[in-house]
Amino acid sequence: MAGDSQIRIGILSCSNIVRKVSRAINLAPNATIAAIASINNSIEETKSFAASNNFPPTAKIHSSYESLLEDPDLDAVYFPIPASLHVEWAVRAAQNGKHILLDKPVALNVSEFDQIVEACEANRIQFMDGTQWMHNPRTAEIKEFVNDPVSFGHLKTVHSCFSFAANENFLKNDVRVKPGLDGLGALGDAGWYTIQAALLANNFKLPKTVTALPGSILNDAGIVLSCGALLEWEEEGITGTIYCSFLANLTMEITAIGTNGTLRVHDFVIPFQETESSFTTTSSRACYKEHRVVNELPQEACMVTEFARLVGEIKSRGAKPDGFWLSVSRKTQLLVDAVKESIDNNLEPVSLSDR
Amino acid sequence: MAGDSQIRIGILSCSNIVRKVSRAINLAPNATIAAIASINNSIEETKSFAASNNFPPTAKIHSSYESLLEDPDLDAVYFPIPASLHVEWAVRAAQNGKHILLDKPVALNVSEFDQIVEACEANRIQFMDGTQWMHNPRTAEIKEFVNDPVSFGHLKTVHSCFSFAANENFLKNDVRVKPGLDGLGALGDAGWYTIQAALLANNFKLPKTVTALPGSILNDAGIVLSCGALLEWEEEGITGTIYCSFLANLTMEITAIGTNGTLRVHDFVIPFQETESSFTTTSSRACYKEHRVVNELPQEACMVTEFARLVGEIKSRGAKPDGFWLSVSRKTQLLVDAVKESIDNNLEPVSLSDR
Repeated sequence: MAGDSQIRIGILSCSNIVRKVSRAINLAPNATIAAIASINNSIEETKSFAASNNFPPTAKIHSSYESLLEDPDLDAVYFPIPASLHVEWAVRAAQNGKHILLDKPVALNVSEFDQIVEACEANRIQFMDGTQWMHNPRTAEIKEFVNDPVSFGHLKTVHSCFSFAANENFLKNDVRVKPGLDGLGALGDAGWYTIQAALLANNFKLPKTVTALPGSILNDAGIVLSCGALLEWEEEGITGTIYCSFLANLTMEITAIGTNGTLRVHDFVIPFQETESSFTTTSSRACYKEHRVVNELPQEACMVTEFARLVGEIKSRGAKPDGFWLSVSRKTQLLVDAVKESIDNNLEPVSLSDR
Repeated sequence: MAGDSQIRIGILSCSNIVRKVSRAINLAPNATIAAIASINNSIEETKSFAASNNFPPTAKIHSSYESLLEDPDLDAVYFPIPASLHVEWAVRAAQNGKHILLDKPVALNVSEFDQIVEACEANRIQFMDGTQWMHNPRTAEIKEFVNDPVSFGHLKTVHSCFSFAANENFLKNDVRVKPGLDGLGALGDAGWYTIQAALLANNFKLPKTVTALPGSILNDAGIVLSCGALLEWEEEGITGTIYCSFLANLTMEITAIGTNGTLRVHDFVIPFQETESSFTTTSSRACYKEHRVVNELPQEACMVTEFARLVGEIKSRGAKPDGFWLSVSRKTQLLVDAVKESIDNNLEPVSLSDR
């Protein structure tokens, strides 16, 4: 049962990812599922969805998004809805004083996202995007390695890829291949992760230029199914390449090469094991080494716990929202937009220096 | 001592790599060091070099390359000399009926290399470039995996990088950073390996287009110290990226992603251990798997053994030279040239379809 110190989260929709994230909210010691709204299911169906996913019996069932967003018992809302709906509902949530956990891609483009940013800032709202691997304790150790000036030095290049082989049904019907819904395709989905991985490898510094690579594959509606891009940072010769695809075997790699060290991760998005994961490093100062990291909670529950902790700081102590995750989301969206713009403009480089 | 069935190899120069390759010739059961020529050392110095590297006492010492190439007791010659000298001496070797083991890059450009090809063909000469990892038994298993239509499917993308952090002395004085000597810099050296890795991942099929990536670093003399490139094959969306550098921590990675499987190698150029190495795969049909391969001989001795075997087939049975390695070298040189051309032409794509 939810204690008073728990952050009360409402969920918009019964989409598939809710099964995973509702379990995560249940596992998080400082959060509870307080409500769900579905507009595509009857109240009975939603009740049954809630029960079969172990929602607390106290969780309210709303039949409209408006009603959930106006529910005074909620602290925060999780948005597992298509990207095309984010700007409308996230802005409304902020205006209703609800803190926001928003799935990626956070919007269809950065100017949409900036409306969400503005609403969050005007209403002192904590924002976080739902990129779960960012909250795995392994990721903290990876960050520590790539920011170690002795073992890693400074970044020279990073390569990140995330691909999976979508089946025929996905390629025809999933929201991620539909222009009206998640119009950014593999780039907004798998690509989002690879871009955050590249950003993480250079301490979240925004590249100065992004260039899409030859070889993109788009479906008949113009949605990206597979693409690559090159990122260039300000300093001479510091680069990154990303590759994302719905058309290749499941692969989730980061290879970051510094002046003194190298990092490799084989399962950065979803670790092969839920509560233990690893990465390997080599360094001019140390041989090939495997680092094993145990996490008591699955990474999605670590994400919810951190989100609820930040919301709790605001609620109980009047803290200001922590802008870090919002800034990471904005940079990621900027890069997603830039890759798309480069694809649409015959692979011309896109400068980010004034964005 | 050399038996009659052994292939008698002469070595041009006392360069550093000779220490490793002469040991490999000593280890190969079917080859022997029969002579060495150095033009930069006195006869006494060369004798002492030969003794300290365990050359057989019967190995002759020549004071000129001409004299070694005319030595009727030699079957073959190993050329650890700067790339700018390859065309002259390799053509002369072929004209003297000597089989050729030539270090990479095989020439300064493919039109030079074609003179070597012509001389080899005219004189029925066995050719092989000195890319040692290609002959590691692990590489045969890697080839088998990426050519398996079930476990790997067909290639979607491959990423390969080879970098090492050269010291100040190397960056000032090594032949690999001098325009007059190995004028292709990191591209002809580290890049050569990455290009062969990318070719191997697609069954040695030549890409149709090559585009250098932004972010190359050249020294004051215009020699590449670090660069990347994108390869595109004929089939839509099949790509590869390579990265080579003298300016980043030692890293030797291949990540090849097929429709059904993924291959990862962390030490493809020089295995972390001399007589055992590994690679990992995942496949839609099998989980993450580590493959360990034991090789009785170090990979450079495997190379010499295979070279001597091919020469032996010609010598003892009148076989025709095996053209496979020559064709791999030519494709690699074509790609090296194309990356350089793209760097020199403002990163314009270079078509290989008519080369």
